[in-house]
Amino acid sequence: MPGPLMGPLFSSPGMRQVWSDRGRLQALLDFEAGLARAEAKVGVIPQRAAEVVSRLCRAESFDVEAIGRAGAESGNLAIPLVARLTALVAAKDRGAAGYVHWGATSQDAIDTGLVLQIRQGLGALEEDADRLVRALVGLAGRHAATPMVGRTWLQHAVPITFGLKVAGWLQATLRRRGQLRRAGHAALVVQLGGAAGTLAALGEKGPAVARALAAELALDVPELPWHAHRDRLADLGTALGVLVGTLGKIARDVSLLAQTEVGEASEAAASGRGGSSSMPHKRNPVACAVALSAAARAPGLVATLLAAMPQEHERGLGGWHAEWETLPELFLLTSGALERLAAALGGLLVAPERMRSNLEMSLGLVMSESVGMALAPFLGREGAHALVETACRRSMEEGRHLRDVLGEDAGVGAHLGREALQRLFDPETQLRASERLVREVLARLEEED
Amino acid sequence: MPGPLMGPLFSSPGMRQVWSDRGRLQALLDFEAGLARAEAKVGVIPQRAAEVVSRLCRAESFDVEAIGRAGAESGNLAIPLVARLTALVAAKDRGAAGYVHWGATSQDAIDTGLVLQIRQGLGALEEDADRLVRALVGLAGRHAATPMVGRTWLQHAVPITFGLKVAGWLQATLRRRGQLRRAGHAALVVQLGGAAGTLAALGEKGPAVARALAAELALDVPELPWHAHRDRLADLGTALGVLVGTLGKIARDVSLLAQTEVGEASEAAASGRGGSSSMPHKRNPVACAVALSAAARAPGLVATLLAAMPQEHERGLGGWHAEWETLPELFLLTSGALERLAAALGGLLVAPERMRSNLEMSLGLVMSESVGMALAPFLGREGAHALVETACRRSMEEGRHLRDVLGEDAGVGAHLGREALQRLFDPETQLRASERLVREVLARLEEED
Amino acid sequence: MPGPLMGPLFSSPGMRQVWSDRGRLQALLDFEAGLARAEAKVGVIPQRAAEVVSRLCRAESFDVEAIGRAGAESGNLAIPLVARLTALVAAKDRGAAGYVHWGATSQDAIDTGLVLQIRQGLGALEEDADRLVRALVGLAGRHAATPMVGRTWLQHAVPITFGLKVAGWLQATLRRRGQLRRAGHAALVVQLGGAAGTLAALGEKGPAVARALAAELALDVPELPWHAHRDRLADLGTALGVLVGTLGKIARDVSLLAQTEVGEASEAAASGRGGSSSMPHKRNPVACAVALSAAARAPGLVATLLAAMPQEHERGLGGWHAEWETLPELFLLTSGALERLAAALGGLLVAPERMRSNLEMSLGLVMSESVGMALAPFLGREGAHALVETACRRSMEEGRHLRDVLGEDAGVGAHLGREALQRLFDPETQLRASERLVREVLARLEEED
Amino acid sequence: MPGPLMGPLFSSPGMRQVWSDRGRLQALLDFEAGLARAEAKVGVIPQRAAEVVSRLCRAESFDVEAIGRAGAESGNLAIPLVARLTALVAAKDRGAAGYVHWGATSQDAIDTGLVLQIRQGLGALEEDADRLVRALVGLAGRHAATPMVGRTWLQHAVPITFGLKVAGWLQATLRRRGQLRRAGHAALVVQLGGAAGTLAALGEKGPAVARALAAELALDVPELPWHAHRDRLADLGTALGVLVGTLGKIARDVSLLAQTEVGEASEAAASGRGGSSSMPHKRNPVACAVALSAAARAPGLVATLLAAMPQEHERGLGGWHAEWETLPELFLLTSGALERLAAALGGLLVAPERMRSNLEMSLGLVMSESVGMALAPFLGREGAHALVETACRRSMEEGRHLRDVLGEDAGVGAHLGREALQRLFDPETQLRASERLVREVLARLEEED
Repeated sequence: MPGPLMGPLFSSPGMRQVWSDRGRLQALLDFEAGLARAEAKVGVIPQRAAEVVSRLCRAESFDVEAIGRAGAESGNLAIPLVARLTALVAAKDRGAAGYVHWGATSQDAIDTGLVLQIRQGLGALEEDADRLVRALVGLAGRHAATPMVGRTWLQHAVPITFGLKVAGWLQATLRRRGQLRRAGHAALVVQLGGAAGTLAALGEKGPAVARALAAELALDVPELPWHAHRDRLADLGTALGVLVGTLGKIARDVSLLAQTEVGEASEAAASGRGGSSSMPHKRNPVACAVALSAAARAPGLVATLLAAMPQEHERGLGGWHAEWETLPELFLLTSGALERLAAALGGLLVAPERMRSNLEMSLGLVMSESVGMALAPFLGREGAHALVETACRRSMEEGRHLRDVLGEDAGVGAHLGREALQRLFDPETQLRASERLVREVLARLEEED
Repeated sequence: MPGPLMGPLFSSPGMRQVWSDRGRLQALLDFEAGLARAEAKVGVIPQRAAEVVSRLCRAESFDVEAIGRAGAESGNLAIPLVARLTALVAAKDRGAAGYVHWGATSQDAIDTGLVLQIRQGLGALEEDADRLVRALVGLAGRHAATPMVGRTWLQHAVPITFGLKVAGWLQATLRRRGQLRRAGHAALVVQLGGAAGTLAALGEKGPAVARALAAELALDVPELPWHAHRDRLADLGTALGVLVGTLGKIARDVSLLAQTEVGEASEAAASGRGGSSSMPHKRNPVACAVALSAAARAPGLVATLLAAMPQEHERGLGGWHAEWETLPELFLLTSGALERLAAALGGLLVAPERMRSNLEMSLGLVMSESVGMALAPFLGREGAHALVETACRRSMEEGRHLRDVLGEDAGVGAHLGREALQRLFDPETQLRASERLVREVLARLEEED
Repeated sequence: MPGPLMGPLFSSPGMRQVWSDRGRLQALLDFEAGLARAEAKVGVIPQRAAEVVSRLCRAESFDVEAIGRAGAESGNLAIPLVARLTALVAAKDRGAAGYVHWGATSQDAIDTGLVLQIRQGLGALEEDADRLVRALVGLAGRHAATPMVGRTWLQHAVPITFGLKVAGWLQATLRRRGQLRRAGHAALVVQLGGAAGTLAALGEKGPAVARALAAELALDVPELPWHAHRDRLADLGTALGVLVGTLGKIARDVSLLAQTEVGEASEAAASGRGGSSSMPHKRNPVACAVALSAAARAPGLVATLLAAMPQEHERGLGGWHAEWETLPELFLLTSGALERLAAALGGLLVAPERMRSNLEMSLGLVMSESVGMALAPFLGREGAHALVETACRRSMEEGRHLRDVLGEDAGVGAHLGREALQRLFDPETQLRASERLVREVLARLEEED
Repeated sequence: MPGPLMGPLFSSPGMRQVWSDRGRLQALLDFEAGLARAEAKVGVIPQRAAEVVSRLCRAESFDVEAIGRAGAESGNLAIPLVARLTALVAAKDRGAAGYVHWGATSQDAIDTGLVLQIRQGLGALEEDADRLVRALVGLAGRHAATPMVGRTWLQHAVPITFGLKVAGWLQATLRRRGQLRRAGHAALVVQLGGAAGTLAALGEKGPAVARALAAELALDVPELPWHAHRDRLADLGTALGVLVGTLGKIARDVSLLAQTEVGEASEAAASGRGGSSSMPHKRNPVACAVALSAAARAPGLVATLLAAMPQEHERGLGGWHAEWETLPELFLLTSGALERLAAALGGLLVAPERMRSNLEMSLGLVMSESVGMALAPFLGREGAHALVETACRRSMEEGRHLRDVLGEDAGVGAHLGREALQRLFDPETQLRASERLVREVLARLEEED
């Protein structure tokens, strides 16, 4: 959980709120209040007790530092929190104090509180993801037909359009948003099992209390308590991890496009943003750095959630605790990367003229595939490949356009006229194919809306 | 990819077949054959060429070692494979040779081949998962009412039934099987984009070829080629990782139950299985070790898939290559853990009498929660907790049953008669609650079938 | 960086101080002050400017929240910090303001500041490690001859002494402390390179300034600036990771010994420590949980540091940022685990009588290796192994001591007399061997002191 | 362990030999032979038995597949290996068969065998590292004064020399080679503890046998058996991981320099190397891809070794097994990356003219730091920074050289004459500073040799 110094770089303000110490306390208290109301509804505790408890469950009344210290002794936060809450209740209504946390165990409060925070976190991510999707839809539409060079292995390959690159980013973002929704929804279940997951302390009324609590908190009821089965949370963590990986892919591309030698796109310069303390001319791609650092960190955090899964028996030791900071960090990193990228792509400075000049810089080599395929029916696939490969080498060595080198080759002239050769170097087909793919992606998206 | 020495320990025979070198070559060849047939169907290459190519796409005709060495030079296996296939085709039909791999790029073959292997791998996992589910359903049913102690933090907590523990394993397995199906299904898409994902080399017929190829191979057509967008594969890898984490949880529990001092369950002893070279009396829980080692390894492999995601531009370098062995290893580990655990749980030796004696060994302390809750209305929750805590300490120090210690306490006697106290130490309520949960889980499962 | 709520559970107070936001600001300011003094000494800036700058480098004068927000815009904290420091200096001495941060780049300040924090962190860890070592030396000495059962695969194997187990923990702790010292020492180098690592802005005086700065801060001078070469930090992170793994091993053992059914050791109960909100009788091994959770989290954090290493050119983007929170978290987790375990092992409650009764519970089976080896000269190794294996099975099935079962076996009687057999079941040899190993370890340690 | 298809891409031939199935069997057999000889020397078993055993310990006599299958049942390879060896010995000399593996446990053989393989692996890495070091020394010397632009955040920063970049790679490689030697040396210890690490089965002669075995195998004797303390291996794994991270850093830089738009360096084109199946003009940086994929995979593998450390009691289950394939994979990946990079850098094609033209492309902006510092004494640091920043923006917008823009600025003219301004744009100082650093690094290296 990044503090005030690092927080603003690595996360969004909304998400920091969700996972703040105050936010965590309140989530635990929301569980306690919901439990009291649910138990009153089902007739397990007096209505009046539920009212008193419910009214006092406000994080402002609790001393974060003191609960942190006491929680370190007891091994979890719920024990000192319940003790403090009980004291507050007792001060108002002695009788009601006995009904605080009735029949529940610490992990019930901690896990359900976590689920409540997760729900808030998912809401915040949804908004940021939507902003990113809108930015990408806009870019893809505007640049559906903007020619640029496609690059493989960091080498010029064949012409594409910038819109096609953006459409790839867009589709991946949509897939990850969808999976995050699914994994998030599956994780929104209440935890209520009592000491060992049987809810036995509530007798026959256990299941009814669980249902009422879920209704109070607008969560689902799981088939069984899940104290030592953390697969839903791990699944959610991996959905965040894969989303961050996709954001890292987008940021990798943008940072490469923004290189001084490439210059095809750059993050909008805001006052003071991305400057350098020593070099007045620098414009650093800060959003890309934030997303790439999230992409470097998320895999390790996801691995932690998975490594923590084999928890002992009905409630484990160590594995459960390893989740406590790890899942929040994943949310924070994801939100930071999403928010930054959404802003950066919303204001991306695109340089179509640099795209075009870069496309042309390799003297026709990017069209070598087309030429090779045109010659293959005459020379065989391998013969054609070899001929073109030789011509490419000469073109690079002599700094002459591949078309001109090929134009002098008798082997080529025998099969392709001057005009045919000329046509092969027109990237129009490539670009049309790219544009069509972009248009289809956008059309399908519009239909779905 | 474990060799013959380690393979049998860490994977199932079927899964080793899927990911063998031979299996990988054949999958690449299935792509080439499917592509030729698809292109003939759409009219891009001659029907006769497609027939010749298709007939020669058999892995037996290829030298694995030689292709491995040549692939190391070129950076991928498709280049030497296509060269060798072209030579084979040329020997039969000179004209057809020019149409091998027509319009495709190496990654099209490698990725689609991978997807074909994934489909086989998913099929094998499905069978093993079904066997595990059946074993767990059987155990849960037979032991729905078998009392044992629930353990939290590796300490005795409260009574549960063994069936409840098994039902937890079962539900988690079902959830992970479901998620694996979803992620697996989403990954079963063809890869066909040509040099930079535009399919431009096939002109206007590109999309039709992609559809025909998908039909040939019974795969789905993606919205866009996905050469540098690996999120579907990463997602599938994480689904395997979370499943393995669940298997690790089950194995952790079984290995703890099998401890000499606990003795509540053990893997069936097969001749020669789990023996020790130095200690004739040992029965080592080998299946648990296999599953736990998979659970220790999967997180790192999943992290690799995530870390490899930010691939450069239209096709990256390094990230893509990092997947090549990692995803297969995840499949292999998952299958080894699943197969072993399915067998071990299918033949699990359960010792209800040890469960009962362990439950009784803590002199009634496991019922302390019930007593505390019974006294809370009279003494307040905290007062009751403190009274019982003191009695527990005395019980442990003096080696006397908690019921007897409490029976002498005037504070208790004032509120609870001898009979009421006796009843509180009857685990029946706990056990009934456990059993009910198990029955519900099994009933729901039967409905769904 | 865990906040006040989680911090106390996962770290020690001293270490939280080191890595607090305030601590980080001060470390950056210590760099700026040291740089100014060094540059004055070498004659690059006026002495008076250095004095003013140096005097104003106090974290209390800076607004953490504001610097965090501004740093998020610029991409690092040094830019707003230097701006604020410059304003403070200008208010005192207009002329001096121009010499703040002279010739340095942001990363010089951030990295050197980090190194200063690392040095403090290493000091804190050293103390905790020493406490743990002392606790282990004490335990090993007291229990050098205390018999217990050795366990392999969680099964009873052969007799050992508790001291031997502790000596293993001790040796591993000593090895890790040594490696941490080495890696820590290697990382204590100043960072000063200016914009791209050439120190060119300081002209010919660059190297002299670097040496003077290092002297000011009592750090070493590296051969080259290391802006994009993070191997020393990664190495330090892995030394922390391997140490935490060792602490996890110790905690795993202690938590297993503390199981209700085993009962051979337990963490000392402090008032309120390790209690349960629902179960008055519970004593949870909180220190073990803290160490095991650190051991679950450290591998992912180490992986992050390694994954962040391939940083671009002279200063990268993303990789560098991924370290900022990760290395501090490793320090925090290590300190939490060390401090907790040192306390827990210092006050460990050892139960020799439970050790002895557990050793005896397996009816002599733990001596089966000795019997097998005694019979091998007569029956061959495999014949002896088979005979003893059968006897072990019968012993377990019939609940009779292995010695008695073997005593009835004619095949045994032919070679071993009653008394010889009796002697083989005396664990004395095993225990003497264990004790000797412990004594040697302790003697060697004393010599080294 | 990559098979014949993937092996050649991801590892060197020598390293594949070391970790082959055959290599592993032989290492286990070397332990058995060494043990027999050691025990004969100490007088524990007959000399003749040792001779027979020793002579038969040849991997060729063993069926890898069969031992793999049997090992899967028993949970480790040593059990079937010892059984087969015993049968071979018995066929020669019935009496000797009883002394095979005398007093040892499976893990003694497996761990010591592993250590023997590690020693071979370290030798192979040492050679490859030396080749890389030589290549880098050569490059640094030849290009100590070759001007190029330094890049931070993937943006042009200030001038450096190519030699300085190479010297950074070199220093990091030397540091990692040193640390690998240290960690490797520490891991070369024999494992011999018998069933639970006490060596009790050998009575008073245990320690002498351990020393004799170590002498036979030329390994060190550890203070204690280390069956469940894996920190030395984890430490070695991390040393490999940090080395691979450094190789990844080098490969990242080279791949960025090799971009079509940058073109400052490229891997030498070998016949058939780095070609493309669809694009005849492509030269893919295959060595960089191999090193970058290793750098993407190593962090996860290191994390696995760390996660596997908390092994249970005297010998664990799961954690130990998780190492079996993981450490070899780290060796294989490291060797592949090292070998490829050594070759690629040995034959690196450097383009000084592209370096110079790229340096000049940013119209003097890379000298903005110098100008800012020259103006600071007159305008204050912030005033100067602001003035230069504005001039930089104008220079970029108008496509004019920064020197010319500044030349028109009255604020500049007041303090800097035309000639002084001209001098500030001479990168000579920067380049001299770079060159001096390179020369010092190389001189120091020569001294050490």
